Order: sequence, then structure tokens, then C-alpha cells
Amino acid sequence: MRILFLGDIVGEPGRKAVIKHLASIKQDHAIDFCIVNGENSAGGRGINQKIATELFKAGADVITTGDHVWDQRELADYIKDQPNLLRPINYPGDAPGEGLVVQDSDFGKIAVLNAQGRTFMAQSLENPFTVLEDTIDKLLADGVKIIFLDFHAETTSETIAMGFHLDGKASAVVGTHTHVQTADERILPKGTAHLTDAGMCGPEISVLGRTVESVVFRFKSSLPTRFPVAKGPVRLCGCIVDVDPATGHATKIERYSRLLEPSEM
Amino acid sequence: MRILFLGDIVGEPGRKAVIKHLASIKQDHAIDFCIVNGENSAGGRGINQKIATELFKAGADVITTGDHVWDQRELADYIKDQPNLLRPINYPGDAPGEGLVVQDSDFGKIAVLNAQGRTFMAQSLENPFTVLEDTIDKLLADGVKIIFLDFHAETTSETIAMGFHLDGKASAVVGTHTHVQTADERILPKGTAHLTDAGMCGPEISVLGRTVESVVFRFKSSLPTRFPVAKGPVRLCGCIVDVDPATGHATKIERYSRLLEPSEM
Amino acid sequence: MRILFLGDIVGEPGRKAVIKHLASIKQDHAIDFCIVNGENSAGGRGINQKIATELFKAGADVITTGDHVWDQRELADYIKDQPNLLRPINYPGDAPGEGLVVQDSDFGKIAVLNAQGRTFMAQSLENPFTVLEDTIDKLLADGVKIIFLDFHAETTSETIAMGFHLDGKASAVVGTHTHVQTADERILPKGTAHLTDAGMCGPEISVLGRTVESVVFRFKSSLPTRFPVAKGPVRLCGCIVDVDPATGHATKIERYSRLLEPSEM
Amino acid sequence: MRILFLGDIVGEPGRKAVIKHLASIKQDHAIDFCIVNGENSAGGRGINQKIATELFKAGADVITTGDHVWDQRELADYIKDQPNLLRPINYPGDAPGEGLVVQDSDFGKIAVLNAQGRTFMAQSLENPFTVLEDTIDKLLADGVKIIFLDFHAETTSETIAMGFHLDGKASAVVGTHTHVQTADERILPKGTAHLTDAGMCGPEISVLGRTVESVVFRFKSSLPTRFPVAKGPVRLCGCIVDVDPATGHATKIERYSRLLEPSEM
Ligand SMILES: [Fe+2]
Ligand SMILES: [Fe+2]
Ligand SMILES: [Fe+2]
Ligand SMILES: [Fe+2]
Ligand SMILES: [Fe+2]
Ligand SMILES: [Fe+2]
Ligand SMILES: [Fe+2]
Ligand SMILES: [Fe+2]
Repeated sequence: MRILFLGDIVGEPGRKAVIKHLASIKQDHAIDFCIVNGENSAGGRGINQKIATELFKAGADVITTGDHVWDQRELADYIKDQPNLLRPINYPGDAPGEGLVVQDSDFGKIAVLNAQGRTFMAQSLENPFTVLEDTIDKLLADGVKIIFLDFHAETTSETIAMGFHLDGKASAVVGTHTHVQTADERILPKGTAHLTDAGMCGPEISVLGRTVESVVFRFKSSLPTRFPVAKGPVRLCGCIVDVDPATGHATKIERYSRLLEPSEM
Repeated sequence: MRILFLGDIVGEPGRKAVIKHLASIKQDHAIDFCIVNGENSAGGRGINQKIATELFKAGADVITTGDHVWDQRELADYIKDQPNLLRPINYPGDAPGEGLVVQDSDFGKIAVLNAQGRTFMAQSLENPFTVLEDTIDKLLADGVKIIFLDFHAETTSETIAMGFHLDGKASAVVGTHTHVQTADERILPKGTAHLTDAGMCGPEISVLGRTVESVVFRFKSSLPTRFPVAKGPVRLCGCIVDVDPATGHATKIERYSRLLEPSEM
Repeated sequence: MRILFLGDIVGEPGRKAVIKHLASIKQDHAIDFCIVNGENSAGGRGINQKIATELFKAGADVITTGDHVWDQRELADYIKDQPNLLRPINYPGDAPGEGLVVQDSDFGKIAVLNAQGRTFMAQSLENPFTVLEDTIDKLLADGVKIIFLDFHAETTSETIAMGFHLDGKASAVVGTHTHVQTADERILPKGTAHLTDAGMCGPEISVLGRTVESVVFRFKSSLPTRFPVAKGPVRLCGCIVDVDPATGHATKIERYSRLLEPSEM
Repeated sequence: MRILFLGDIVGEPGRKAVIKHLASIKQDHAIDFCIVNGENSAGGRGINQKIATELFKAGADVITTGDHVWDQRELADYIKDQPNLLRPINYPGDAPGEGLVVQDSDFGKIAVLNAQGRTFMAQSLENPFTVLEDTIDKLLADGVKIIFLDFHAETTSETIAMGFHLDGKASAVVGTHTHVQTADERILPKGTAHLTDAGMCGPEISVLGRTVESVVFRFKSSLPTRFPVAKGPVRLCGCIVDVDPATGHATKIERYSRLLEPSEM
């Protein structure tokens, strides 16, 4: 089974590019299942029902999020009724929505998980290492073998540790949040595909999708600034993972990174 | 002029691998100048005179560091007498050592700078954006054109913003500290080579060079742990930058990532 | 010379209480000079021209601020023309406004300074220890002896270290930002009055001035929340410092804490 | 029932002062039960069996700790066998020791709890708001009415929110960790005694118990420094809480702060 994952979709440029090209990417790469991280798809801040609906229609099977999940106030209602839109699983108590969805596929059940790291993250959530271990052990006990985790975290140490922690249990542990793709894709020793960060789908000339001028001004001056989403050519980033449905182990992981030509925008 | 940069060298495994292979790497890639980040070369924590001397002897022209620069207490004395061993330039007052060195080369003067980011970093240093702009403007006024910056920072936003901030002024702005190589090497619009993180030179099966077990234990338990440097095959990470000595602009940047075979260790 | 300082004024409740009672407090305590921290006076977030004007009219000679100084966008313009409204002095470059004002008084010149700590604070400002030492050394060289510092900081260690750092140079180093008055008022060995935090002027039944329910909800759920300013009885917090104009040294510091009766609101 | 609580005991000066004076303080104030925070009693870093034994012998019924609990490696063994020495209750999994102890007293059962805040704290522990609510609800269901919580936290907001969160359930919620006593002691509306920070038992001329010179040097230079425990006169800080055993509600809370004369040292 071949899974396409695209990292944080940023604003209108990222969203339009994904919507326009997702079908052909899936076809070109013989993708069986598609997950996208949409936490910055609404003007850079969160996601809403309209955009989520467009992304599902364009070919996303599941949408994951992260620390920006609640940026659009209306989402709290919508997420309750849309099981394929995930928020980090490690919220305490009864936060709206879920961090896990299990879907049927031609290759058997596939579970998609979304969790958030704790080091240097805005919210203090519950321990993702214990929460995910418990959850995945239950999935495995239930016979679910294909398990994909979008781990939304700031530090490389937390994401890599998570990869090894779930090695052999999850099919893939892929990081998001830094908006920069890392070059360390690999199959870990026990069969889990790992990439520390998938990178974003957003404007190439930007700082994490925002205009260069605004972010540089902030770092130079420490003064408050608005950070508009940048314009110009978009790069789509993510990865493609092949999973053996019989074992749930990954057999291959490749980075995906494509700078769209102006004519493709 | 072709510059080789190797990221954070971790412990004995990383150090031995660099010392053993640096001469041949330089020869194979026709390297004119070599910079390595040595902040984790002494047991993972800092660097000392003996190790620095070995790295210089092995072919490093300049050694940069970062937040771990003072981990070995003896360094404060040695760094005063060794201008080719840098600490972050943005310390306040009169910290031992320097964050800038200018060397002569066959291609004219080359300046190497080392600075540290502030977001989520252990020490509160001065604003690297203003400090570096001032310093580089002076270098340019003095006719120095080839300028390489190792920017040691945690967040992708600070490193990318620094790249654009110095675009057209520095020849290269390459990040270190996360120990994971990013896949975003590029020449920025005004001619500066940029890579958000060069990655480390350290054990492949590890979390940032430390044993997997120790780091996973910490994240699961929140209990104190020792983090031994891991063993096993080493990957060398960094980049190679071509600079036009006439303009100081970069003409090419390539990531360098080589997993050493057991027979090469 | 007797100086009254009131800590962070929070929202309409805090503002109205200060405006109503400041004149009588000054009279009752024979106050010669009055400084108030207004960083939360506009709905809990920042300050604006209208409110600053009211506070000046009510008897404040100088208004200090902190990390919330820019919360009201219009302030950047107003602060340029109002030298008695301060922002933290340790902004880099040319931020709007000033962090120092020197006024004439019956007791000679009095300098009021406002600076911001760095540990755990939202903005990364320049080193307040070096900036303040330089600034105060110049004031002393210019013959200014009465020097009051509002040091806006999160941690007790940074504020207490600042007190000792400026001991004998500043007349008083008083902290703000935690909104809770500390019980450690004292004259340091060389003559500087010190109080780690002055406390706030705001609703007694609240968490730092905000409604209890909203803040507790946030800590329990990690979900986004609005934090309305609380209602009900207001406590005014601050301190009164006596300074010997001949030496600039403090001779006395007393905490000020007064819970207003409903009939006084 | 009258409970004496003393805040973070720092190093030999704090420890010796507590050991010497605790019996007489208990007698003078008619104390029925005594709790001390010992997290800095071993040279400023943690606590060990020898010191804990001395503190129990001197009159402490229970010793609480905080983020420094594991600083002395041997403690992990000792804490398993000593139920009256607590570590924060909100560690995940099966950390050594406990965060709760229930003792019999002449006034019925008394529960002492120790928990750690999360904002700006070194370790990422589980949500203290949900953990404590669950634990205290069980205690109340078991008929335990006298419940004292040492909440070890950095920010005033987290500690005050905790006080209100447990108002009417716990007899007292007293903060530690900042080492500076706050002046906000009060009985909250539903009967819980609250003090944001109890303050420390340590050298008066110091920064949180450490020498002034070392801490100021660190803030000025950002260079690594040793922070020796300071010498000189010691101040003992804490609070005294009266609890009605019939209801578990507090009837009175007073701050305790006593600067020992040289002759008393
Ligand atoms: Fe994102
Ligand atoms: Fe994010
Ligand atoms: Fe580093
Ligand atoms: Fe490093
Ligand atoms: Fe503030
Ligand atoms: Fe404030
Ligand atoms: Fe402490
Ligand atoms: Fe502590």
C-alpha cells in the first residue's frame, strides 16, 4: 500500500496548489491513500469547514493538524462531526474531535494518528510517548497493522525519539511543524518509516510561508508585526511511504519535494 | 573557491570518522577551505585543546561551536590563543575568544563567522541579526568578499530569516544545532547559499548522537538520565559551497551526507 | 523625597480605582512623585492615549509598561510624543518611545527607567544588565541622583540580581509583571530600595486580573480561551519609597496594598 | 489543627537554621503538624537520606520537594522506602516514590500532596490540574478532610489558578519554587488557604540562596558559572495555617518570615 503525506499546507498559495495538483500527483505516483496536514491552510492560521471540504474533495483521505488546530473558532464544532479531520490525540480530558481515525482500505484497516510534541510547544499536552504507545498497542491488538502517525513537534530529538519508540509498531512516523523538510528519510531497524519533518506546502520565497520582510523585521526589532502569507511560486513537500499490508512494516520511504513552475500555479 | 562545511561532530565516533576521512573527502571534492562545527566533539559536550588540535591537523581550517562551547572548562583559556576556534559572536561584553576570523587564501580573504540564535536557546545572547549585519557591513567595507556563517539555532524560522537577512552580503548562511540535515539547500535570490541545518557527524542509530534508549526513557518518564554517545556506523553530514571570489556570491550549494560502511570506520 | 509606585493596572476595574483614589492616596501619604505601571490598563492588554491621559491627569507623573506595551496598535504613534510614557529601554535599534525620562522636581532631577527581563519573556530584548548599567552610569555622571527603575520580569532571580547589580547606583529597583506582590521589601546593603514585585492594581478575585473560570479552564483543558478581565472588589498594590535627595539612596521602603471596600469602588 | 509549612530549604545555612530552630518554632506557635520543602537542602541541589533524616528528627512530619528532587542520585532508592518524603505526584508512569502521603493525627487523617507546575518548568510532567482533582476527589470520598498541597511552580498564574481550582476541596494550596515569599496570603471564597509562594529558608543576602556575585555575573555575561550557596544571616520563610478538622476548611493563614540574628545562627 502506498501512502502520500503532504506537510503543513500554508495559506491560499499552498491550498490552491494542493487542490490543483493532488489528483495528478496521486495518479502519477500510484498513491493508495493520502494524508495532508492542514493546520495552516486558512490564511496561515488553522483550517475551517470550507477548506477541509475542498481538501477532501481534492483527494485527501485524512487531514491532520497541530498547534494551530483551534485558530479558526468555528472548527471546534465542525471537527466533532468530521472523523477524518484530526487534532492532536494527547489533549487532556474531552477536547472536541479525535486524534485517531481508522478507515477501511483495499489493503485492510489503516489507522491515522496525529499527536503533538511538548518541547517548546505552545500548549502543554499529555505525554505523547505514553499516550501513543497505549493507543497503538490497542490498535495492534485489534488487528490494525497499517498505522501512520503525523507527529507535530518542534525539536528533532522528540520526533526522532518517537520514531524509535514506535519502531516496529507504527508503519510510519513522520514529523511536521518546522515547515522545513529534513533529509533523513529512512526505515528504522524494526520496520517503521521515519522522516523528521515532511516540510510544508507553501511559498518558496518565504520564512515558513510568511513574507521574508515581516519575519526579518521581527527578529531585528523585537517589535510586533503582522506576518502575511507570502506570494510567488509554491513548493509542495511531503513523503511517499510503501507499507506491506501483511506486516504493517514500511518497505520504502521517499521524500517528495516539487517546486511548481509559474505555469503550474 | 570551494568550501566544505561539516556539522556538529558528536563524540568519539564522529570525531574519529572526521579525522580519518577528512583528507580524502577534501581531495575527492577539490575542497579549498574546510570548516567544521566541533561543539559536541568531546564526549558530546564541548571541545578541548587536544581534540581541536587533532581536527586542525586532520584538515579543518576553522572550527565553529555553539551553545555547548563552554562545556569543557579548560576551553576558556585555550580559545583565547586559538583564533581559528570560534565561539558565537553575539556574547555580550568580553567573553573569551572571538566569533569571527579572517584568513588569507588563494582566492583572497575569507571570513568565517559563528553566531547563535535566541529562540529556545539555553543562553540569552545579544541580537544576532543586528550584530551580524554590523560585522558583515564592516567586512564588506574592508574588501572581504568571501564570508561564511555557521548560524547555530534551534528554530527553522530564525535560521531562514537570517539567510534572507544576509542575502547578498554573506556567501553562505548554514545552520547547525538540530543535528538533522534539512533538504532545503538553495542559492537565495541575491546570491547567498543557504541550508537550514547541515546535520551532524555522528552515529546513525541514535537520537542526535545519543543512545536511543536513554532519550526515549527520558521522554517517557521525565526522569533524569545520562545520555551516552551512541555507537555503530557514523554518518557525516554537511555541505559543499562554491563561491565566486570576485563577487563573494555562491554559485552552488550541495548537501553532503555519507554513511560510512563498517569497513570505513 | 517620597515616591509612590503602583504596579500593573489591569483593565477598567484597576484603572477606575486608580483614577478615583490616586489623589487622596498621594495626599494621605505625602507623596512627592508618582509612577504607575499601565501595561494592562486597556482591557488588560496595553494602554492607549486616552487612558494614559486620564492616568496623568489623576496624578501619575510617569507611566511605565512592559511586554504588553504594544498591544494597542495606536500606541506606537502616541508614545513618540509623550516622554512620560515609557517602554522597556532594552529594545534593539530605534523602537518608538523611550525607556528613560528625567524630570525636574523640588528635590532635584529624578530619572525613571523601565526595562524588561529576558528569562521566559515573550520578546528577546537586549541585555538589561549591561544596558541599565551603562545608562545609569551616565545619569550619575550627569549628576542625577534620584533614579527609579521599574524592572518588568518573570523570574525572581533576574529581578533580585538586578537589584544587587544596581545597588548603590539606583534609588529603587522594583519589579512588575507577575501581578503578585512579594513580601521581600528591603534596603539593599549599598542603599537601593528593592521589592521583587509590586503586585497589580486589579480585581481581588481573579488570576492576575482575569476571571478565575477562564484561566482554570485553560490549565485543565489546554484549549484556547478568552480571558476576560474579572469584576468585583479591587486591590491596589505597589510601594512607597523614601529617597535622600543628597545621596540618591533610599532610606525606607514600604509595601502598599489596599483592598477597596465596595463603597470605595 | 495548626500546620506549619516552611519553603525551600537552601544548602547548609538553611538546613542548619531549620534544624536548630524548628522545635522552638513549633512550640512557640503551638504547631500540630509540620511540612518542609527540602528540594535544595543538599548544597542547593536536591536532598539525601542523611539530610532528610535530620529534618524528620528536627520535627518535620513530611518533606516535600520539586524540580530538584532527583539532583542527588542516591535519592531514587531512599524515596521508595520513605513515604514521608514526597516527589511531585504528576510524574508519568512509575517514578520512584509518591506524591501523596496520608498520616494519622489527633485531628483525624491528614493528607499531604506535592505537585509540580508545567509552565516554564524543567520537566514536562502530567497535567497537575486533572491529576490533583482526581486524587483529591478520592481522598474526600475516603473521608480525608485535612489536605495540604505544596504546589511547586514558576508562574503566579498557575499557582493561583490551582488555588481556586481546589478551593473548598483542599485545606491549603501553598506555592514553592520562586524562593521569594509573596504577600497575598488569604482564605479563598470556599475555604482553602492560599499563598502564591512560601519563600525559602536560606541566606538573606543572596539571589534565591546563591551568592550575589555568581548570579549577577551570569546575567551580565551569559557565560557558565558555578552558583555557590551564599553565607551570612538566614531568613526562614513559610506560613502557618489553621484548619477546622470538622470541615477541612482553613480558618486562618499567616505568613511566617523570620530573619535570624547572628547570635541565633
Ligand atoms: Fe505549521
Ligand atoms: Fe505547527
Ligand atoms: Fe547546539
Ligand atoms: Fe550540537
Ligand atoms: Fe507583563
Ligand atoms: Fe502586567
Ligand atoms: Fe527551590
Ligand atoms: Fe524548584
